[in-house]
Amino acid sequence: MSDGFGLDHLPYGVFTTRASAPRVGVRFADRVVDVASVRPELDRPTLNDFMALGPEVWSQTRTEIAGLVESDTLPSYAVDDVTLQLPFAVGDYVDFYASLEHASNLGRIFRPDQEPLLPNWRHLPVGYHGRSGTVVVSGTPVVRPCGQRKAPTDDAPVFGPSRRLDIETELGFVIGVGSELGDRIGVDEFAQHVFGVVGVNDWSARDIQSWEYVPLGPFLGKSFATSVSAWVTPLAALAAARADLPAQDPAPLPYLSGTEGWALDIDIEVVLNGEVVSRPPYRGMYWSPAQMLAHLTVNGASTRTGDLFASGTISGAEPETRGSFLELSWGGKEPFAGGHTFLEDGDEVVLRYGAPGAGGGRITLGEVAGRIDPARE
Amino acid sequence: MSDGFGLDHLPYGVFTTRASAPRVGVRFADRVVDVASVRPELDRPTLNDFMALGPEVWSQTRTEIAGLVESDTLPSYAVDDVTLQLPFAVGDYVDFYASLEHASNLGRIFRPDQEPLLPNWRHLPVGYHGRSGTVVVSGTPVVRPCGQRKAPTDDAPVFGPSRRLDIETELGFVIGVGSELGDRIGVDEFAQHVFGVVGVNDWSARDIQSWEYVPLGPFLGKSFATSVSAWVTPLAALAAARADLPAQDPAPLPYLSGTEGWALDIDIEVVLNGEVVSRPPYRGMYWSPAQMLAHLTVNGASTRTGDLFASGTISGAEPETRGSFLELSWGGKEPFAGGHTFLEDGDEVVLRYGAPGAGGGRITLGEVAGRIDPARE
Repeated sequence: MSDGFGLDHLPYGVFTTRASAPRVGVRFADRVVDVASVRPELDRPTLNDFMALGPEVWSQTRTEIAGLVESDTLPSYAVDDVTLQLPFAVGDYVDFYASLEHASNLGRIFRPDQEPLLPNWRHLPVGYHGRSGTVVVSGTPVVRPCGQRKAPTDDAPVFGPSRRLDIETELGFVIGVGSELGDRIGVDEFAQHVFGVVGVNDWSARDIQSWEYVPLGPFLGKSFATSVSAWVTPLAALAAARADLPAQDPAPLPYLSGTEGWALDIDIEVVLNGEVVSRPPYRGMYWSPAQMLAHLTVNGASTRTGDLFASGTISGAEPETRGSFLELSWGGKEPFAGGHTFLEDGDEVVLRYGAPGAGGGRITLGEVAGRIDPARE
Repeated sequence: MSDGFGLDHLPYGVFTTRASAPRVGVRFADRVVDVASVRPELDRPTLNDFMALGPEVWSQTRTEIAGLVESDTLPSYAVDDVTLQLPFAVGDYVDFYASLEHASNLGRIFRPDQEPLLPNWRHLPVGYHGRSGTVVVSGTPVVRPCGQRKAPTDDAPVFGPSRRLDIETELGFVIGVGSELGDRIGVDEFAQHVFGVVGVNDWSARDIQSWEYVPLGPFLGKSFATSVSAWVTPLAALAAARADLPAQDPAPLPYLSGTEGWALDIDIEVVLNGEVVSRPPYRGMYWSPAQMLAHLTVNGASTRTGDLFASGTISGAEPETRGSFLELSWGGKEPFAGGHTFLEDGDEVVLRYGAPGAGGGRITLGEVAGRIDPARE
């Protein structure tokens, strides 16, 4: 048993041992295989140089590594004996809002008397830029952020630790081959540019966010930390997970239409202090990652190796498939999982991702774990 | 005559000649002085390694370079004979909204029946993350972006080149010494972290922006290009430009209060096709750059060498001091400068910045120039 990390998966990460500088490793079963000897671009402290080489080299290298792993000719370490690092240097980080159910839930919670979806939502994948410098690897503790908040009943804002600290269960996409300023990446060019997939938890302080976000969007309510998995699953490992997109109504504009759907059948578990509290399904997301990337570049914005874009919170239609505590507790009014509303100090959240692998098996994407440390006042 | 580039200024940039790799140069009069021999960190393709050394080294190096320039012992080139590059590798790019007059004008234009300022505006410097990968050096042409727009009278959005392409006249601040995740930078620690100042034009497609920006803020309406000056003026060169902040009412929360005001007496000219069309004054900006940086980090967000944060559009109280075409043409309804509303293909905009220098003279900050190229459809 490879427990989701078999030859059909082989995700990439960056690791250190006590004796060695950071370099690229590949996960196989419970081992980290040192692949630095396979290509010079893998003997690096980030995946960026390798990701920049493009799909042909990605494919050749994956085949070569699979052979070397199978023949057990490369050095390896027990995964518990290494330290996993942030696997890539993040260029720009963009977060989308691609779940119809999540966007609708937020509309119902915050604007109960109005149409839940805003007028632009079905016409374009709404997104914004997040802070790339605070993208951290799974396992990094998250310090509860301080900031201004103001309840509608308060006369003036107060300053202090966030009281509505939340998760956002997301999937992220990492650019391997960038694009030039003025150019666009079409929907069907997705696989020429995107190297792979990571799990993402976009920690959010809802009280800070709700006071600050008008009119320029979220800022300090999100910028304190975004956790990503230590393992980047290559797109090639997700071939069996590809699925049809849900129907889109109205039909998207031509630049958002393609022949390749890129929905992905990825199941997620949200684990709070060891208990599964939600199971968001990625498969039903309204906007595909290929549409997100086409939208991101339609104005001629360039992209770079290491750019990360994420789906936004993944929520399904059923209450037990919601991807944020804000939705699971319905705005903090309906405690779940034994009395939880938002995150308490000491809480640990692990996001687990699984998908169909080649040959009828399953692959386990890299998990995203984080524990809440108390605020520093 | 040094024309604003005398010994009291000495801004840093990065240049190439036909024969040489990119390295750091210092502007003196109409010459670019090759300072690569002064310190190894200046023999680099960006300013980042030098900026990371901190204020003591910045000060020593500035004194040393001034002496070497005065004695004419370093090689130099005519500024017209070199190519100026983006002077620093941009980490995260944050744009604020710090002008009371600009924020009020936008409120009056877009929400004429309501209070112009939103409730949070006087309590915190509103800001958001922009795209760092599309920060370009002065002189880079700007391709008119395409995107979705929808007028209130349209049934559905249409796709095409922006019809309301605009400038935003801003001032930017470059982080030299970063800060750790979980830490804060206090208002009075500004000069320990900020290396210098650049001119910024945050090109904006108002029609794309107004359709997309709810609820997560500006995205494609801004992400196609942000131009910065080729010269970074060290903070030390702006000592004579320091001024008192305007009164802030209500008093800011303690984390936004400091003893060092960091208002800056910088005059700006907006030049459209050779004609000065506006003169925005930086001096009257409501929120200081030190307050912006304290706010940016109060949630524990880390900062890195090369992070850029900008003021947002600078507008004064008088119509002829407005920093965007949106305001100069009052939402496109009042043509200015011989019939202009928004930018036409072929228009060239140059932002010029001047400030008091040491000893009663004036310094000229690096200009920010850009010409509009037609959309690529």
